[in-house]
Amino acid sequence: MQSELEFISWLQEHVPPHPRCELPLGDDCAIVHVENSAVVTTDMLVEGVHFLSNEVSPRRIGRKLLAVNLSDLAAMAARPTAAVISLALPRKGGYSLAVELYEGLLPLAERYHVAIAGGDTNVWDGPLVVSLTLLGDPHPRGSLRRHGAVEGDSILVTGTLCGSLRGRHLDFEPRVDEAQRLRDQYNLHAGIDITDGLAIDLSRVLAASGRGAIVDVDLVPISEAALELAHRANDRKSPLQHALGDGEDFELLLTAPQDEARRMLADTPLEVPLTIIGEITPDDGLRQRDRQGRITPLAADGYLHRTNK
Amino acid sequence: MQSELEFISWLQEHVPPHPRCELPLGDDCAIVHVENSAVVTTDMLVEGVHFLSNEVSPRRIGRKLLAVNLSDLAAMAARPTAAVISLALPRKGGYSLAVELYEGLLPLAERYHVAIAGGDTNVWDGPLVVSLTLLGDPHPRGSLRRHGAVEGDSILVTGTLCGSLRGRHLDFEPRVDEAQRLRDQYNLHAGIDITDGLAIDLSRVLAASGRGAIVDVDLVPISEAALELAHRANDRKSPLQHALGDGEDFELLLTAPQDEARRMLADTPLEVPLTIIGEITPDDGLRQRDRQGRITPLAADGYLHRTNK
Repeated sequence: MQSELEFISWLQEHVPPHPRCELPLGDDCAIVHVENSAVVTTDMLVEGVHFLSNEVSPRRIGRKLLAVNLSDLAAMAARPTAAVISLALPRKGGYSLAVELYEGLLPLAERYHVAIAGGDTNVWDGPLVVSLTLLGDPHPRGSLRRHGAVEGDSILVTGTLCGSLRGRHLDFEPRVDEAQRLRDQYNLHAGIDITDGLAIDLSRVLAASGRGAIVDVDLVPISEAALELAHRANDRKSPLQHALGDGEDFELLLTAPQDEARRMLADTPLEVPLTIIGEITPDDGLRQRDRQGRITPLAADGYLHRTNK
Repeated sequence: MQSELEFISWLQEHVPPHPRCELPLGDDCAIVHVENSAVVTTDMLVEGVHFLSNEVSPRRIGRKLLAVNLSDLAAMAARPTAAVISLALPRKGGYSLAVELYEGLLPLAERYHVAIAGGDTNVWDGPLVVSLTLLGDPHPRGSLRRHGAVEGDSILVTGTLCGSLRGRHLDFEPRVDEAQRLRDQYNLHAGIDITDGLAIDLSRVLAASGRGAIVDVDLVPISEAALELAHRANDRKSPLQHALGDGEDFELLLTAPQDEARRMLADTPLEVPLTIIGEITPDDGLRQRDRQGRITPLAADGYLHRTNK
């Protein structure tokens, strides 16, 4: 694959038409059918920060590019509709690399019915940069926001936390369907996807809602990976510290009234775990509660203040 | 400006709220009110291809980033509504650079009532990469497409061609208002913005429409810049060759029925020149006609076949 023209021909052959898109690829803009409001998110991945080209295949980078944007839409319980993709490709082998990025991305787009509506492809002397903007329809019951948690709400998370360092940050499944299903069936107050670590992302919900929280650290669902990590000889964090502080989990953090949260757990509406890990408080602090019921401050970066000297 | 946090605070202070946007900056996604269809375009600018950081101020780069996307929307006669912006910033001075980019971009956003709905900011070891996705409302009479030119149509261009090499490619005014006004008042068949050169972009309209064209090369409006360029001692192109072949004019190329085109010229609805430069033919060739009426092939790259040996 040598030229942009070849690459665009490849795209036109491999990107399926989509009922949301009025035009085939290649006009000045795409025309996308949306509901009255469009939910919009954009994420860029760059060499050396989000991936290392010599360690990760272009297919996994392409998949991740769409997945991180899908996770943002899931955080709002929006339904993804269409994406546009911009690439800055290295001069050597750039278009072949672009094809592989798309080969990783297209199956995920198909899985979530996302139209690839357009894009912009550039070749330059720098390393790989990929950027995607994703549109979605807001949920009929309204978009789930960071704002909205109230005192007494239970705090819930999907899945288990902290597998990102073992490759899951590339291959995670965005919680698009889970967010839809929970928003369909339950009264949710607030939501976010966990990208920078449970403690940081929870503190964002608290800041937006003007509330505080107590996390029952004993209830935080810890992944096998966090246990393995903590068992490494030179690892100075506990599995819990990994689960609270490590980023790129891409699980959902939600708040809902306590009764509703209990109903959710009883119903088991998801195939992935759903766990109550704490509650929203009227103050604006972030605290932890251990098995013995002792309450101590919890830093937003996940650092655990010791309860024992 | 040292950190992302400071930069986001700066953004929250300097990016004005907008009636199209439901949320303030900083949630997982933006929610943008659109008509039933959204017109979407994305363009990325990268160091060394679209600008040279040591020659061009960040403000001009920021302005251009929005302007090129506005030009794409103008090509469809769409009305811009909201943008999301992704940045890959160099590690040294990145956030201050980001502020300057925005300072160049925000006045243009205000001028065209574009909401800055969100974005993604990254710091990395590479040079500057900026990417913007722009949403717009389709024109009530429908989006102007490349597809749609029919035989007998006149071909029109706005402005004068080929000033790009003298800095205009950074400071051009996107023809957003001109496209709206023409689409409001006249029956236009096809349109594109001239980004890669008149001949190439016209050939795109022809390919999409399954038609050919004759360009009256004598009528092509040539900028002062093209004349100056051609007068350089080592310049081997004529002013016309510059006007036909040079890219980044960001003028509109339109087709309309001959009578309608004449009416447009008689009305002078725009403050910038509007010129008929040729006509659409039923075949699929691209040809030129000189002052004497001689017709010869015209290469899509703007290369002029000589009519005299």
